[in-house]
Amino acid sequence: MNYKKAIREIKGADEAAMQKAREYIDTLIKPFGALGRLEEIAVKLAGITGNEKNKFNKRAVVVMAADNGVYAEGVAAAPQAFSRLQAVNMTRGICGVSVFAKANGADVVVADIGLMDPPGTDAVLDLNVKRGTDNMAIGPAMSVAEAEAAIEAGFGLAKKLYEQGYDILGTGEMGIGNTTSTSACAIALLGLEPEVAVGRGAGLSDEALANKIEVVRRALAVNKPDKNDPIDVLSKVGGLDIAGLAGCCLAAAHERKPILIDGAIAAVAALITARLCPAAKDHMIATHRSTEPSYNATSAEIGLTPFLDMEMRLGEGSGCALAFPIIDAACVMINDMGTFADISFDDSVLVDIREKEEEES
Amino acid sequence: MNYKKAIREIKGADEAAMQKAREYIDTLIKPFGALGRLEEIAVKLAGITGNEKNKFNKRAVVVMAADNGVYAEGVAAAPQAFSRLQAVNMTRGICGVSVFAKANGADVVVADIGLMDPPGTDAVLDLNVKRGTDNMAIGPAMSVAEAEAAIEAGFGLAKKLYEQGYDILGTGEMGIGNTTSTSACAIALLGLEPEVAVGRGAGLSDEALANKIEVVRRALAVNKPDKNDPIDVLSKVGGLDIAGLAGCCLAAAHERKPILIDGAIAAVAALITARLCPAAKDHMIATHRSTEPSYNATSAEIGLTPFLDMEMRLGEGSGCALAFPIIDAACVMINDMGTFADISFDDSVLVDIREKEEEES
Repeated sequence: MNYKKAIREIKGADEAAMQKAREYIDTLIKPFGALGRLEEIAVKLAGITGNEKNKFNKRAVVVMAADNGVYAEGVAAAPQAFSRLQAVNMTRGICGVSVFAKANGADVVVADIGLMDPPGTDAVLDLNVKRGTDNMAIGPAMSVAEAEAAIEAGFGLAKKLYEQGYDILGTGEMGIGNTTSTSACAIALLGLEPEVAVGRGAGLSDEALANKIEVVRRALAVNKPDKNDPIDVLSKVGGLDIAGLAGCCLAAAHERKPILIDGAIAAVAALITARLCPAAKDHMIATHRSTEPSYNATSAEIGLTPFLDMEMRLGEGSGCALAFPIIDAACVMINDMGTFADISFDDSVLVDIREKEEEES
Repeated sequence: MNYKKAIREIKGADEAAMQKAREYIDTLIKPFGALGRLEEIAVKLAGITGNEKNKFNKRAVVVMAADNGVYAEGVAAAPQAFSRLQAVNMTRGICGVSVFAKANGADVVVADIGLMDPPGTDAVLDLNVKRGTDNMAIGPAMSVAEAEAAIEAGFGLAKKLYEQGYDILGTGEMGIGNTTSTSACAIALLGLEPEVAVGRGAGLSDEALANKIEVVRRALAVNKPDKNDPIDVLSKVGGLDIAGLAGCCLAAAHERKPILIDGAIAAVAALITARLCPAAKDHMIATHRSTEPSYNATSAEIGLTPFLDMEMRLGEGSGCALAFPIIDAACVMINDMGTFADISFDDSVLVDIREKEEEES
């Protein structure tokens, strides 16, 4: 199996399972629709797996670590060595994503998909496609073949995790400079203005932000990515981490497993996935609203609405790690709540309530 | 101890502990401020307990169940018998709050503080002050003495739970008609217009909503609650559930324990608490953004911003039950993440990053 073959096989949501879930949820002992987004998530999960009720037992956040050649243009506050250092630290359990994942019973799987230097530990999986992208401000970040290899690597890793019994994955990344590649991809794919789609990343001064906007503008002018060709955009102004996460999203859709979308970088990977394979969107669940400015336009374009509003901008997959209990809550709602039939509530009264409620909608 | 004495003893946040927590959080291996609301919660928890680092082990959602005489005016879609029925169902583990609390390791403590009929099971604690309020559309919902007794009952229950080792509580309620009393209190205390502060509750038709607005308007005209006297407002147009939750909030502040605020009804209880004792605000944490229209104005007035955006309107304390993992995440962040010192990252580089970041802020 490779990702291109998978794309031809991926199907969208199972509408029949969604309808069954929807109807069942309306029998639970609560007012119609009163659990809002949890009901929506439970219905979406049914559409993904094809089962009215779901429960996810083995979970991981997949972190794609990669360097970005555009770092040379002064677009990041942190030193480039942080990409490798933090990728290793994640496996030591001391990063944000590590502690949140542990608290919520999830593993963190870190892969070197494009670090400049080898991580020097087997705890970080070796999927390296290229030792950092080239500087997109002066030419393409990578070749089409490299972009495709990185998608394939992410696809293969996720497939392997599903074989190991993981049934829900989150998307994470580590790569100094990757909000620059993310903004460039979002601008190219969505036709946004650089002034509104380029942000401060991990923390830039006004001056450094102005430079970052200028660098993104130059990268787009030099490379002229074709907005109708997601691989062209990804290879010219994207990153190896973004490509790897797109591969994970495709694998999730192919396996009919839910995949949690983290912040701005994961959202752009999700957008590229959706452009490659629109049906794959149905298998994605947004988690937290990133403060990176490209996030809202990107997630809206794919039709994803996050439910955590934490003003976070850490990346790493930290938002996914926080979101597992919400997915669990959607599952226990449909699995464990009582129904009006269970409580033998007089049917005539129930019909009366339902009629009153329906008048409203 | 009674709640009036407690009010005189309640102190606000421990600023020194907050400052220590803030400084420590800035040493964690992440960009300054990148964990947004989680950092804010961790700092708030330090201010509440006086300890830089916190961990909460024994948790419960307290559900105050009460009936509302204003039900007679046709303000609710559900039959009045639901208050008692659902209070009992919560203890059977089949309601929304029950399944979410269980998933997140919390107990649900249900108390009859004002049900019309005794619940008929010891699983619901008997704190009954009055068998339902009187119809506020024709006179005061209850006497001042009854309102004070209900606050005292809630205060006493929370105190007892703290004695039993609970270290974090959430606020929940069950009472058909209680969005009507909630709206009336919010309007009286905040000077809102009934048209914008009265909502559909569990689900009303347009016609029923118009009637509910008219009923609230009449209740306020008949009772003329004094906006500067929270007990006057509570007794005239409030509810026994709201009073009981205000008592819980006061006990939490007195014990210096965090108390989670659920949706619109709990938020009005929090507002009344804050009017009785401004320092008590520092011990409250908002959880989810209720879709009830009075919620935003009420929570904003107390300075609380929720972090879950689930479009929920179930009540029961369901939003609190969902929020425990976020509180846990704030704790593991400060307890378990590594610091720059831990990873021996070259200090000169670190200083350089911090300076770049500070330029921005």
